[in-house]
Amino acid sequence: MTALPPLDPTALGLVRPDAPGLARLREFLGPDGLRTDAGALEAHGRDETESLCFLPDAIALPRSTGEVSRTLALCHAGRWPVVPRGAGTGLSGGALPVAGGIVLSLARMDRIRELDLANLTVTAEAGVVLADLQRRVDEHGLRYPPDPASRESCRLGGNLAENSAGPRSCKYGTTGDWVLGLETVLADGTPLATGGKNRKDVAGYDLTGLLVGSEGTLAVITAATLRLVARPRATLTLILPFPALDAAAAAVAALFLDGHHPAACELLEEGAIAAVARLVPLPAALAGQVALLLVELDGDEDEALLDEAAALEELARGLGGGEALVAREAAEQRRLWEIRSKVGEAVKQGSVYKEADAVVPRAALAELVRAARAAAARQGLRAVCYGHAGDGNLHVNLLQGDLPDALWRERRDAAEEELFRAVVALGGSITGEHGVGWTQRRYLPLRHAPAAIALMRAIKRTFDPAGILNPGKIFPDP
Amino acid sequence: MTALPPLDPTALGLVRPDAPGLARLREFLGPDGLRTDAGALEAHGRDETESLCFLPDAIALPRSTGEVSRTLALCHAGRWPVVPRGAGTGLSGGALPVAGGIVLSLARMDRIRELDLANLTVTAEAGVVLADLQRRVDEHGLRYPPDPASRESCRLGGNLAENSAGPRSCKYGTTGDWVLGLETVLADGTPLATGGKNRKDVAGYDLTGLLVGSEGTLAVITAATLRLVARPRATLTLILPFPALDAAAAAVAALFLDGHHPAACELLEEGAIAAVARLVPLPAALAGQVALLLVELDGDEDEALLDEAAALEELARGLGGGEALVAREAAEQRRLWEIRSKVGEAVKQGSVYKEADAVVPRAALAELVRAARAAAARQGLRAVCYGHAGDGNLHVNLLQGDLPDALWRERRDAAEEELFRAVVALGGSITGEHGVGWTQRRYLPLRHAPAAIALMRAIKRTFDPAGILNPGKIFPDP
Repeated sequence: MTALPPLDPTALGLVRPDAPGLARLREFLGPDGLRTDAGALEAHGRDETESLCFLPDAIALPRSTGEVSRTLALCHAGRWPVVPRGAGTGLSGGALPVAGGIVLSLARMDRIRELDLANLTVTAEAGVVLADLQRRVDEHGLRYPPDPASRESCRLGGNLAENSAGPRSCKYGTTGDWVLGLETVLADGTPLATGGKNRKDVAGYDLTGLLVGSEGTLAVITAATLRLVARPRATLTLILPFPALDAAAAAVAALFLDGHHPAACELLEEGAIAAVARLVPLPAALAGQVALLLVELDGDEDEALLDEAAALEELARGLGGGEALVAREAAEQRRLWEIRSKVGEAVKQGSVYKEADAVVPRAALAELVRAARAAAARQGLRAVCYGHAGDGNLHVNLLQGDLPDALWRERRDAAEEELFRAVVALGGSITGEHGVGWTQRRYLPLRHAPAAIALMRAIKRTFDPAGILNPGKIFPDP
Repeated sequence: MTALPPLDPTALGLVRPDAPGLARLREFLGPDGLRTDAGALEAHGRDETESLCFLPDAIALPRSTGEVSRTLALCHAGRWPVVPRGAGTGLSGGALPVAGGIVLSLARMDRIRELDLANLTVTAEAGVVLADLQRRVDEHGLRYPPDPASRESCRLGGNLAENSAGPRSCKYGTTGDWVLGLETVLADGTPLATGGKNRKDVAGYDLTGLLVGSEGTLAVITAATLRLVARPRATLTLILPFPALDAAAAAVAALFLDGHHPAACELLEEGAIAAVARLVPLPAALAGQVALLLVELDGDEDEALLDEAAALEELARGLGGGEALVAREAAEQRRLWEIRSKVGEAVKQGSVYKEADAVVPRAALAELVRAARAAAARQGLRAVCYGHAGDGNLHVNLLQGDLPDALWRERRDAAEEELFRAVVALGGSITGEHGVGWTQRRYLPLRHAPAAIALMRAIKRTFDPAGILNPGKIFPDP
């Protein structure tokens, strides 16, 4: 991966920080709190979005909200670009310092400040690793449900900024649905607290909801108070095989109408099944299947979940589905989940890829897969789809195969644009959980009318008139 | 009730519409679409907030989003105040035309446009009566859960504008949690669609979430697409009696920690029990009780709910609670619910009252009741509390009793302010579901720091630079 030269920030009314400016930051951040060594710049110049890298001027690593505030006040005064960053696991380039400047890493603010059992809330700093937070609440029999695939490394602040989700959003909703309050710092260094521990609060506009998913462009989130629930007493995982994509898609619509509330409902279409079979030995019952649904059920009683699994199998058989694989024991459940969780790695290891995070109304799942295949085929590419069927949200991977690089880039972009046009025509959107960030911003006008984008830009100016926060993100060039 | 003279709109940069202006509206709204008769002005000059009435200049009753757009374009050009209105069942004066102008009633836009069974969504216009919408989806075995007490008369648009809730928000969340998309019109008449039928969508800022709960100050909502769920197969209602307030409050915290997810969890404290006993004959088992919790359970199986009710009774007994009343049949369940649903009427029929909609973190329920009693007592008043214990949201009614009017107003205001100061000190907020509207706006600075209020005001200006939409609401006078 070669670092790209950052964009010229003067076009955005911003400037790169100079050496005296960085020295002022180092005064209170300390030598460990401001890094400018080549290794750190390179590591913080990229996230997990394809092979992109833009070198920042420095990485600020504050240890407190007060230090975040002082950092922002200096950046604001100097008109330096500021790119908030968690673990850099994002998939839309939200953490890329595309105009250089300061990467504001929350990695050293990783404390769990309070676990409040009486209110079932946890308050944690933005830098806590999601899985660490989940293990901590799990010790008390509790659950914080959002489960992005990167949970062992991603940090809470990134989850909040992107409003990330994962398989369990099918039943439990996205990250934003679990946020009761935020501690943030505005672009000029002013602290702003929103919400609290209240489960309902309609006093004024919902700033919490506006800041979640704003991709670091409106404020820097330093901590959050999250709702928790008691961990379900019983879980059960099953895989329903189908001989046709439409049958699997119909089963998804039917099971919700029938009153089932699965914790997860994930789809693997043909190409995804073939890919994962190269990494994970598939049970014989899945051989030759054209679509799989992995369903996780949770509740109070094992017996009730077994009854529900039987009802789901019957529902699937009515649509042409085959015998279900049902796992009760934790180890068995993990084995079934591996078939789903290894798909991404399996699909991506064979080829350079571009992943689109398409979402449609749930009933249009099969049309989404067909649109992806058609858009890819028209460019001589292959598309592999899998993901969160219960939410109508599939990850569409376009594969380079043995295409030369220049041709790949051109055809990839053409296929992606055709895919998103088809998605929007189905009533869908250009991203369900990855964010717009840097790589999807050119598609925003496909999704939103000019009046909506104008309002969003005006909201951005309201929060950050100087435009220092994550410049170049979400919005296409004017 | 005497109508108050409207505020002078020129202080807000607005003017009252003149006769030629109203004639231009009548041109396309038709004679039934623009009313200026005294009866209509009086009826649209008030809502259900105490005895307040401000006469508007006219009532516009558009029949389509296009007519809403044309109405707003004219109002915007004329700088006339516009007050969007559903059924006028609000409890914070959100629909009061305090500066005169045009009341924009959505009452004639009451169609259910689409029930989409494959996606489990319903799209309806803002003027649909909530209970009509719920009956329609119920015919298909589905549920739209939000259940404000006024559901037989309130209209969807008002629910959305106030982000209203009801007992079932305990399990199902508030109105906003069920909204997938909005059809709205901006202050200048520009149509703005947000969201759609997607269960996840992170493309740009969450305008849907920002508009829900914005009390008609940012845009006029003309229609919405809502999520639905299959109706639970089984429900069960029980009342748990307690000899002490703290025991009831402790039971609320304990039952969630224990993994119960009641559909509703409602509290009646001593004064509320005494009041409702005058309207509804109470079962003998409830005589002499100091606090009651009404709990509704729902799920797949009657037997499982009976087991859960037994577990809840045991939990309550461990905290000093008495024998539970358990209702399985629908008629019995309605009888138990009557004890809760008649409280408001019972409390209010004996005296002039002021209702505060206080919310605190759930574990502070007992402190909230004590704070309400103390604030009232210090002014020689009585406070009666009841409501949504599972959400920490209680309706605190201050009662005039036989106090002279002038003294009542003074002491009521003093008690309310003391109550809200105490609520905020407990980490709570000044309104959980009624909105800030007109009557609570003076308390907004107790809840939010100046930076937050400044941002909210700036958002208001971004959406409505001329300030025509629901002027005078939410924000205190500068």
